[in-house]
Amino acid sequence: MRAAILTFDGFNELDSFIASALINRVTRPGWSAAITCPTPVVTSMNGVRVERQQPLSFAAEADIVLVGSGVKTRDVVGDAAILEQLRLDPGRQLIGAQCSGALILSALGLLDGVPACTDTVTKPWAVEAGITVLEQPFHAVGNVATAGGCLASHYLAGWAIARGAGRAEAEAILHYVAPVGEKDAYLARAMAAIGPYLGAPAASAA
Amino acid sequence: MRAAILTFDGFNELDSFIASALINRVTRPGWSAAITCPTPVVTSMNGVRVERQQPLSFAAEADIVLVGSGVKTRDVVGDAAILEQLRLDPGRQLIGAQCSGALILSALGLLDGVPACTDTVTKPWAVEAGITVLEQPFHAVGNVATAGGCLASHYLAGWAIARGAGRAEAEAILHYVAPVGEKDAYLARAMAAIGPYLGAPAASAA
Repeated sequence: MRAAILTFDGFNELDSFIASALINRVTRPGWSAAITCPTPVVTSMNGVRVERQQPLSFAAEADIVLVGSGVKTRDVVGDAAILEQLRLDPGRQLIGAQCSGALILSALGLLDGVPACTDTVTKPWAVEAGITVLEQPFHAVGNVATAGGCLASHYLAGWAIARGAGRAEAEAILHYVAPVGEKDAYLARAMAAIGPYLGAPAASAA
Repeated sequence: MRAAILTFDGFNELDSFIASALINRVTRPGWSAAITCPTPVVTSMNGVRVERQQPLSFAAEADIVLVGSGVKTRDVVGDAAILEQLRLDPGRQLIGAQCSGALILSALGLLDGVPACTDTVTKPWAVEAGITVLEQPFHAVGNVATAGGCLASHYLAGWAIARGAGRAEAEAILHYVAPVGEKDAYLARAMAAIGPYLGAPAASAA
């Protein structure tokens, strides 16, 4: 499965890179995650310039689309040219958003009637956008997931891996990246966060 | 305080970007973290091309130097031209290494008589290099710290922030980046990991 990690100018490095690094640890044939951007180079909220690995049109082809967060997400939401390219289909794709990425899913109509997680800074804007904000790190309804708090990125990636490659693969990767000496506790907490949302086995047969 | 996040070809995105993103959340005047590399562009273990923010010579000037990890760290350890530029001074700098970064600190003679943390893949090489490897996520002796397991990066960054800007600043940043709904538990675990190593108050007066 190919994953698009949507990354815009002003992006939060934690959100895009935790997700991409974890998904890229899936060694099954055909699995890869790509930093996916509207421009050839994007600049992070801390001035780090990163070359895109895929153009934004890749979002429509990918099997997994995770929307990163950043300090300019509200600009993205107001950019019709960008939204136009994000032809996402929750019937066919696993779709997730980290922190302010929820605003983009909302603008695309993907959170209608679906409560969502986001970060504490984004929360007022999410409420303003009509999103029902949950006080928890992760939530999913079917193929649409949201996570709140930068380090909850590993829950979002874990969910996508579990849904696409099975729970055992997700557990192995989460265990590997966890701090030494705390791996079992880290994994248990992660699976407690995402486990309740792994019910649909459809995409797990790969 | 200025932080150099040493980042080499083949780098692990988690290790460099969790550290840099957290340190860049310190809003005190003069604080910043920079992706610091031997070449103008470095390519991650997953093919992400990133422009450096500082050249390697910045490592000698920085107040904090954190060595990232990656799949080519042993090549770096064998590169005399790179090691030559890493004129680190634990008497003046806070120095840390994430995962395989411990091999670089060892090559620089900074782990003589100092046990260290690293990841499970690096451990055999670390033992071969004469490092006493600990089964814990974080350890520090004076101004030299090591962390093991990708997500332990937030402990390493938290330690550097606490040592340089005080414990309250580190706690505020770790709390902010933690998953929503788990912030207190996350912070408590992080401070349990790094708290025992925050004894030296000298650098906390800033």
